[in-house]
Amino acid sequence: MARTLVILKGDGIGPEVVDAALKVLDWAAQKGGYAVERQEALIGGAAIDRTGDPFPSETRALVDRADTVFLGAVGGPQWDRHPKNPESGLLALRARMGLWANLRPFEVFEGMESFSPLARPHLRGMIIRELLGGLYFGQPRGRSVVNGEPEAMETSRYARHEIERVVRLGFQVAQRQGVPLVSVDKANVLETSKLWRQTVEEVRQDFPDVPVIHRYVDAAAMEFVKKPELYQVVVTENLFGDILSDLAGGLVGSLGLLGSATVNGLQGSRGLYEPVHGSAPDIQGQGIANPIGAILSVALMMEWSWGDREPAQWIRQAIRDTLKEGYRTPDLGGHDTTESFTGRVLQQMEQI
Amino acid sequence: MARTLVILKGDGIGPEVVDAALKVLDWAAQKGGYAVERQEALIGGAAIDRTGDPFPSETRALVDRADTVFLGAVGGPQWDRHPKNPESGLLALRARMGLWANLRPFEVFEGMESFSPLARPHLRGMIIRELLGGLYFGQPRGRSVVNGEPEAMETSRYARHEIERVVRLGFQVAQRQGVPLVSVDKANVLETSKLWRQTVEEVRQDFPDVPVIHRYVDAAAMEFVKKPELYQVVVTENLFGDILSDLAGGLVGSLGLLGSATVNGLQGSRGLYEPVHGSAPDIQGQGIANPIGAILSVALMMEWSWGDREPAQWIRQAIRDTLKEGYRTPDLGGHDTTESFTGRVLQQMEQI
Ligand SMILES: CC(C)[C@H](C(=O)O)[C@@H](O)C(=O)O
Ligand SMILES: CC(C)[C@H](C(=O)O)[C@@H](O)C(=O)O
Repeated sequence: MARTLVILKGDGIGPEVVDAALKVLDWAAQKGGYAVERQEALIGGAAIDRTGDPFPSETRALVDRADTVFLGAVGGPQWDRHPKNPESGLLALRARMGLWANLRPFEVFEGMESFSPLARPHLRGMIIRELLGGLYFGQPRGRSVVNGEPEAMETSRYARHEIERVVRLGFQVAQRQGVPLVSVDKANVLETSKLWRQTVEEVRQDFPDVPVIHRYVDAAAMEFVKKPELYQVVVTENLFGDILSDLAGGLVGSLGLLGSATVNGLQGSRGLYEPVHGSAPDIQGQGIANPIGAILSVALMMEWSWGDREPAQWIRQAIRDTLKEGYRTPDLGGHDTTESFTGRVLQQMEQI
Repeated sequence: MARTLVILKGDGIGPEVVDAALKVLDWAAQKGGYAVERQEALIGGAAIDRTGDPFPSETRALVDRADTVFLGAVGGPQWDRHPKNPESGLLALRARMGLWANLRPFEVFEGMESFSPLARPHLRGMIIRELLGGLYFGQPRGRSVVNGEPEAMETSRYARHEIERVVRLGFQVAQRQGVPLVSVDKANVLETSKLWRQTVEEVRQDFPDVPVIHRYVDAAAMEFVKKPELYQVVVTENLFGDILSDLAGGLVGSLGLLGSATVNGLQGSRGLYEPVHGSAPDIQGQGIANPIGAILSVALMMEWSWGDREPAQWIRQAIRDTLKEGYRTPDLGGHDTTESFTGRVLQQMEQI
């Protein structure tokens, strides 16, 4: 059976890392004996340049019919003064697809310890970030003038079901891994966090075997760097997840090593897959972008959207082995190009 | 001339560390030849127990007439189910005093490197956190039921002048230290952050010699752990400051080593001084609480409220020397009591 995929290469190094990752996907598809039908559309700055809109209607139409979307990166300084920024295209895409759970696995690979700023860089976990609520989308929001003075405001908002579904996913992941669930909020100050914590307490009744650790976001930021081994499965609201997942990236040492999945449920769900790094306009077009984040996102796609756990494992193993052999792109201090590094990963996969 | 001080010992280890820090203050006052008139009042859980209110009217009346307030810590599990939590007393105090800038210096002292989780623990800086705006106080906020479902919301709000005054303070501190100012926001998503960034751009016209680095909060969390040496003077809004200052504490390795000042302007302002750590109910009453955060808060008080820069330096130096000689409380792996450690600090100060 053919699988369909909408590809949004986006800006900067987006197209370069997407092309690399698609080679890995092709290999896995061939090995698995299925075809992947691909369709491409515009997003972000590239879409602004061509249509004036970072999430144009043609892209929307294509995405509406798709279950699986693969994205490169959006953004760049040339759109800084544009009324609609490229990032707003990404936010619109997330909202349109109704994808409420952003999964960001993090791991220090063997041989990559020196990139971590930590003295004992043992970390491996996943941040599960609610992606459609909180301060990102809450209404009302905007700018006004009060007594001649500019004022700005936005609203954070959560309904119980928006919290419940992502918390439940967190419990499922923690249960499957046999580890505690760390729930992060600011329930000593925020109303949405009080509802969050209360919902966690309710949902946990269905998962009596999963220990729960509640942490305020400030304490979590502190503890995460001191005892990262406690942070195996973390579930939190949108903005806290944005901050904590980048913090995890900082502890790993490079966003270039991280992929992400944005889904609306356990495996078999719709999904948007993208590397965690940005569009890196400074190295655009040089062929030296690190494809690891994009390739790991392909692995997540196979696993979460298509239920292909085994090929996803192969891909991850091939990345680990390639790094272990010392191959790396310049951002990791090496001399590989995007192409040569990807070639190495493919060779590793051949050996499986 | 006598100086007046309102003392709010609060909960848990609050009274213990306050008492220790006041000995250091007494010493400095004697050396400086002035008297400190002290008045004590209730706050937090202790105030709930006695009056039902975490910020009772007698405390409010006393604070209204005071320029300088010294606080221990608030909170504890026994008030978890109380309708007003102890923390709300602290928030009410901050709001009542009109203190909009929370200063949190962080530093890895010599000999304390092993407490930092970082491989290269060289850090020394200050987070300047806006303390009266944003999500903490914005109205409306609350819980409702929409179509039978619980929903929670709160509002983040900033007027330009609330941003301007703290940003200006940030520039002044950065200018005095001759370092760049790092301004942290989420201007790619939040309206308040757009106004924040715009205000920074306006205020910087008055400080042409201070380089400005803008960072999104997610990128800042990542970069802070990777390149902490860039984060010397950081200015940011309330919630981001809450998170980043605890992150700084995590990088130092112990909140017990940090003091804080909450002020409404450059030196000579009104001020609230408190250690960064919490009430630590688990070790309450054992006489082993680490007094360093409280003592450093006394140093900040002398410097910021009273303009006594020299004695503040003595106090800091005495802490450094005491640690260098290996004295430490159990939280830092030592065997000192609060009293014996404080005694050592006082002895160090005698030698100055
Ligand atoms: C680009 C930005 C809007 C986005 C976010 O804040 O969600 C990014 O930081 C991310 O984490 O994907
Ligand atoms: C106790 C809590 C309300 C407080 C805050 O969030 O401001 C604390 O975390 C702090 O940083 O002083």
